[in-house]
Amino acid sequence: MKGKFITIEGPDGAGKTTQVKKISEYLKSKGYKVLVTREPGGTALGEKLREVLLSLDGESPVPEAEALIYAASRAQLVKKLIEPALEDGFIILCDRFVDSSLAYQGWARGLGIERLADINGWFLKDTWPDLTIVLDIDPALSLKRISGKKDRLEEEGLDFHRRVREGFLKLKALYPDRIKIVDAAQDSRQVFETILFELQKSGIINM
Amino acid sequence: MKGKFITIEGPDGAGKTTQVKKISEYLKSKGYKVLVTREPGGTALGEKLREVLLSLDGESPVPEAEALIYAASRAQLVKKLIEPALEDGFIILCDRFVDSSLAYQGWARGLGIERLADINGWFLKDTWPDLTIVLDIDPALSLKRISGKKDRLEEEGLDFHRRVREGFLKLKALYPDRIKIVDAAQDSRQVFETILFELQKSGIINM
Repeated sequence: MKGKFITIEGPDGAGKTTQVKKISEYLKSKGYKVLVTREPGGTALGEKLREVLLSLDGESPVPEAEALIYAASRAQLVKKLIEPALEDGFIILCDRFVDSSLAYQGWARGLGIERLADINGWFLKDTWPDLTIVLDIDPALSLKRISGKKDRLEEEGLDFHRRVREGFLKLKALYPDRIKIVDAAQDSRQVFETILFELQKSGIINM
Repeated sequence: MKGKFITIEGPDGAGKTTQVKKISEYLKSKGYKVLVTREPGGTALGEKLREVLLSLDGESPVPEAEALIYAASRAQLVKKLIEPALEDGFIILCDRFVDSSLAYQGWARGLGIERLADINGWFLKDTWPDLTIVLDIDPALSLKRISGKKDRLEEEGLDFHRRVREGFLKLKALYPDRIKIVDAAQDSRQVFETILFELQKSGIINM
């Protein structure tokens, strides 16, 4: 595998999409081949599953079904997009990935981080991220930042989003080298520069 | 759990739907409370996933994604329908269930029966079937019986369907008490009587 795989995690309203865009533009300006994708989604099948997952209409999935649909979307993304792009030397930026499943379904929904790491590890094999940036923010603040109609997971209450934050912090303890926590309450330029610094420290881009 | 859970397995064209209908009518005539369902599907969410799985349009799922979407549909069916109906004393007849995943994805697609039994066992816990009837038939014959437009899995070639049959026979060796193999090349009345005999032998209905 010649490329590098970077995932950006954190709650909605933490600024993931903004940062992915800024990093992508920066890396392209430096001559890197960059692929931007997102989860759930990122493939035609994944986008169909995204609609099933986030829609507020119809029957909500039970926690186990929710976790398995996310995993299905991820398996498709890994085989169809991420593995070939890594072979091709791309730097991949993915807006949410496996750690969202571990934090949301594994920890906040109580299904168990270990169990979900096992199910996801089955198809991830060598494609765990090289670096994961968690944009950390008080959910009371991030929920206020979401504009427009909320999706099914955004509609969950503050307690749920506090457990998700706790989940991401647990993951930092489990995977201390891979995961970097960045304070997302800072202004967006500061967040960007902190991420850039982490990319340099981990050797993904040159100093 | 006061009810009983019976699954009918085998390839398309083996006569599963016909037999489910006959057994259901028989059991109702004897005064049993009967619930008939199917996989993938059986719930509103499951029917959306069924469409994603069986559609010939758009991107096909990779084997791991296929296995996880089937598992998601199954988890939803178990929690929303099967567990409550068993509590309520129903005899449940399900057209395909976990053994289809083990035979199709685990064996025929090569993902491993043990791995899929583990993923499915996670949410099945106590709701493995009490009795599983596998309608066994040469795929050269069952494929001929399918009328109308074939779905994505039916479109797979004869070699794939031979491996599926082999998979079901391996499952019989793994779960000899739960799984009964019934020759589906017999006429439909003989098949029905053989199934009825198995229901009696296993104590699900009275002699």
